[in-house]
Amino acid sequence: MTMPPSVAVLRIGHRLVRDDRTTTHAVLVSRAMGSEVIYMTDVDNGIKKTLDKVNKRWGGEKEFRLEIIDNWKKILKTWKEDGGKVVHLTMYGAPINQKIKEIKELSQRILVIIGAEKVPKEVYFLADYNIAIGSQPHSEIAALAIFLDRIFEGNQFNKSFLDEKMKIIPSDKGKNVIKRNPDYSSSNNNNNNNNSRFKNNQN
Amino acid sequence: MTMPPSVAVLRIGHRLVRDDRTTTHAVLVSRAMGSEVIYMTDVDNGIKKTLDKVNKRWGGEKEFRLEIIDNWKKILKTWKEDGGKVVHLTMYGAPINQKIKEIKELSQRILVIIGAEKVPKEVYFLADYNIAIGSQPHSEIAALAIFLDRIFEGNQFNKSFLDEKMKIIPSDKGKNVIKRNPDYSSSNNNNNNNNSRFKNNQN
Repeated sequence: MTMPPSVAVLRIGHRLVRDDRTTTHAVLVSRAMGSEVIYMTDVDNGIKKTLDKVNKRWGGEKEFRLEIIDNWKKILKTWKEDGGKVVHLTMYGAPINQKIKEIKELSQRILVIIGAEKVPKEVYFLADYNIAIGSQPHSEIAALAIFLDRIFEGNQFNKSFLDEKMKIIPSDKGKNVIKRNPDYSSSNNNNNNNNSRFKNNQN
Repeated sequence: MTMPPSVAVLRIGHRLVRDDRTTTHAVLVSRAMGSEVIYMTDVDNGIKKTLDKVNKRWGGEKEFRLEIIDNWKKILKTWKEDGGKVVHLTMYGAPINQKIKEIKELSQRILVIIGAEKVPKEVYFLADYNIAIGSQPHSEIAALAIFLDRIFEGNQFNKSFLDEKMKIIPSDKGKNVIKRNPDYSSSNNNNNNNNSRFKNNQN
């Protein structure tokens, strides 16, 4: 059984959709679904503050980061030089159903590129794969989510974050959120089944 | 092999995120990924115009519609009275990995509920299933997309729309879009392999 790949996300084109909720969605989807980092151009620090709040409450400061960058081309080229694969999600691309198996088998490190708006033509040529999540226009947020779900085969949902202050316990009908016991030191942090870490706070 | 279910989407809570791109994304994801209709409250006709443009260009006027409604509770109750299942997507819910098989086996008609913002508590009680696409905050657009991909097992991407004026032919490196031959009558519309419907317009 192969190791799951290491995944980063690169989102291009924010200057045209500045301060849009979709920017936040792109960051939170990357965080929640197994990516280690999201690179973004043209965003201001507001988005960093949003992520900090989420990481503080739900954990993730050690596992996921946002990097605001100047030069997406440099990120892409460095990724390839280091032996990683670059997958660009576009409705014009090859169908994911046909390509996902090959991508999983051949790629240990994947940089996923999505565009807030039209991406520069060069992306199509520099990418190792141009992949369509369906050949219809919809949402780069949806495309990213489905790609990550397919790459990680749903296992990304089993991942826990360290240092979370609050943790959701899945519930059929209600909202079951437990808070971390403030007396518990994070240096004793072995695994998530240690219930003394948390005070139960059922709704 | 069971028939794929019939799916509708209900999005609640637009008054707080009026005119947001995520509203468009919710509509286009529903359209692109196998839903027959999306019900929305508190949206203006701008979103209908956006959908009309997409349907005119890429097809779908006959297969997918947006209904602006007053009363989401009535939609939900009618759906259940007609024997359909209601699935509410929420990070507090039961894990999709554990529940998807049961939902697929027991549901021929599914109403998927997503919230633009916090949904009223009643939704949790009225829904047949409260399902988490991971137990972390992220994006209702991502949650919807993954749920549809799991329900339809990726087959939603094989669906074609009738009456499209333009059609994307998947491409590894470029943008290959073909235009419908204006002399071709839509009453001769048998299947999508009839190439005389289209003039090739390769980029």
